[in-house]
Amino acid sequence: MEVNTNFEIRIRKSEVSRIDSLDFNNIPFGKVFSDHMFSADYYDGEWRDCEILPFSKISISPSMTALHYGQAIFEGMKAFKDMEGNPQLFRPEQNFTRFNNSAHRMAMPELPEEIFISAIKEIVSLDRDWIPSQPNCALYIRPFMFATDEFIGIKPSDNFKFMIFTCPVGIYYPKPVKILVSEQYVRAFPGGAGFAKAAGNYGATLLPIKEARTDGYDQILWMEGGKFKFIQESGTMNAFFMIDDVLITPELDGTILDGVTRNSVIQLMKDKGVTVEERPISIDEVVDAYHTRKLQDAFGTGTAVTIAHFESIGYKGEEIMLPHCHRFLSRNQVQ
Amino acid sequence: MEVNTNFEIRIRKSEVSRIDSLDFNNIPFGKVFSDHMFSADYYDGEWRDCEILPFSKISISPSMTALHYGQAIFEGMKAFKDMEGNPQLFRPEQNFTRFNNSAHRMAMPELPEEIFISAIKEIVSLDRDWIPSQPNCALYIRPFMFATDEFIGIKPSDNFKFMIFTCPVGIYYPKPVKILVSEQYVRAFPGGAGFAKAAGNYGATLLPIKEARTDGYDQILWMEGGKFKFIQESGTMNAFFMIDDVLITPELDGTILDGVTRNSVIQLMKDKGVTVEERPISIDEVVDAYHTRKLQDAFGTGTAVTIAHFESIGYKGEEIMLPHCHRFLSRNQVQ
Repeated sequence: MEVNTNFEIRIRKSEVSRIDSLDFNNIPFGKVFSDHMFSADYYDGEWRDCEILPFSKISISPSMTALHYGQAIFEGMKAFKDMEGNPQLFRPEQNFTRFNNSAHRMAMPELPEEIFISAIKEIVSLDRDWIPSQPNCALYIRPFMFATDEFIGIKPSDNFKFMIFTCPVGIYYPKPVKILVSEQYVRAFPGGAGFAKAAGNYGATLLPIKEARTDGYDQILWMEGGKFKFIQESGTMNAFFMIDDVLITPELDGTILDGVTRNSVIQLMKDKGVTVEERPISIDEVVDAYHTRKLQDAFGTGTAVTIAHFESIGYKGEEIMLPHCHRFLSRNQVQ
Repeated sequence: MEVNTNFEIRIRKSEVSRIDSLDFNNIPFGKVFSDHMFSADYYDGEWRDCEILPFSKISISPSMTALHYGQAIFEGMKAFKDMEGNPQLFRPEQNFTRFNNSAHRMAMPELPEEIFISAIKEIVSLDRDWIPSQPNCALYIRPFMFATDEFIGIKPSDNFKFMIFTCPVGIYYPKPVKILVSEQYVRAFPGGAGFAKAAGNYGATLLPIKEARTDGYDQILWMEGGKFKFIQESGTMNAFFMIDDVLITPELDGTILDGVTRNSVIQLMKDKGVTVEERPISIDEVVDAYHTRKLQDAFGTGTAVTIAHFESIGYKGEEIMLPHCHRFLSRNQVQ
């Protein structure tokens, strides 16, 4: 793996690897972290102090802006091993672009591509032994940035920290997911920051998710607010519906995430000759298709979940059971 | 100040006070912190380890839930000195109730009243020398809670930290503020978490505020999304309009903050015999009142800002200049 950077990255390796503590045949999602992390600080108008160091706790002020006002963004991406065992990143330039789009919306400084990409390559290369080879497993990469001003007035921070850590991950949803259409809560709205991977977009969804889980569902299908008619996305996933041999997914209207897996699925399906439509799709259209037996499949896409088929969609007391024909996609094809 | 608690608070005092470093005649807002802070941890389903210790940095995991998903809330309140120099809190029970309302919306554990109130009383008592006596100054108190799970799946955290620090503060807005009606960005929407003092509600407003400041305004007046007609609140403030001797403020519809200062102003004005209406108010109604010379005053209320009179309101290129009659309210009356 070639690393090319104009920013000098200081590397301080961990003395002892923790890799022996991981059972590669039983990898949990998101709670085991590889040996190293990357850190860079933004102050006096520039990114500085690029460093790879052992994964460890960090020291912050209790008055740090990110903790009080949620000025924080993140990305999610994956590394795999190729046939020769070399690390391969999946479309990192798309994550880079989205990261800076999120940064702009949250009044945070953009990151130079050299830092973002070379830091990821460097850390993945250093912790390459943590990349699992098992089916459906990968090394999940989490770049994130947060505001570090020690000040409690409400204004954009002047100081930021950018970090990356990685974790070997197994499958996110071990089986097809049960989805509930939200008719009470709303995730995002035009004029908001729904398209950004901003911390606050997720925190406000935790209660709705918790309540849905109490009712036996795995995730929420978010509707636009007001009339609760048009589908936005599902938690952690963009939503796709195969109706009458046409694959439909909500268009990027500013309220939903511009998913890298979403883009990839659209491209792959078009390459296979499938008609793909990015357009507003109402829950009524899905229900009608279900009743007229034209609803062939429904699934979510995301870096963490890859492709998660919907087992059912709960709406107004009715359960729309998906046929799981899986005619067009299997989990492995896109991964 | 009486402190009554069933939760034992361990107290570890700072060895040397930093109070001599503060110029009480020139107190900035929100960047000087008193000697001590309070900390409690929630784990295994209970609040534990209540402690007052010297204000200092804290150690967190880079994977901490609050940093990635904004599961974090806060409160803001003030302490003053009475004639005898004893600390007095302003309606802390209202902040307590709102804190737990925010906690519920963000899938966080509620805090027992004994901890919230007695921790505040204890820390204010300990750092009472930091309460300024100067006009328009106070000791600002910042209770906050954040999610501390070391896990990057998206689910409500199981572990949390509750902290309180205080800072002596001067005036937030040194002069009447220039307000811009937002016609592009939206802060909150029905079904969201706009009523909660959740971190994410603030982060997404920083870019709009930054852009407004570039255009010469101090703050934004948020409109409901969709038609951008009805007024919600201003940044850091609830909004009030005096039209034809009637004081009008948007009703609590779930999108705006249930302000303690708002409630106090409503009550004080009613006590003075003023008609107060909590109801939807459109920006058109304000503009019409301005043109017919019925708009007598407009101001924002909040713990940090107390009463901040609007100097002007920018809307569709027009500047609504407020008369500043200040007939009914002065900054000191409510403080």
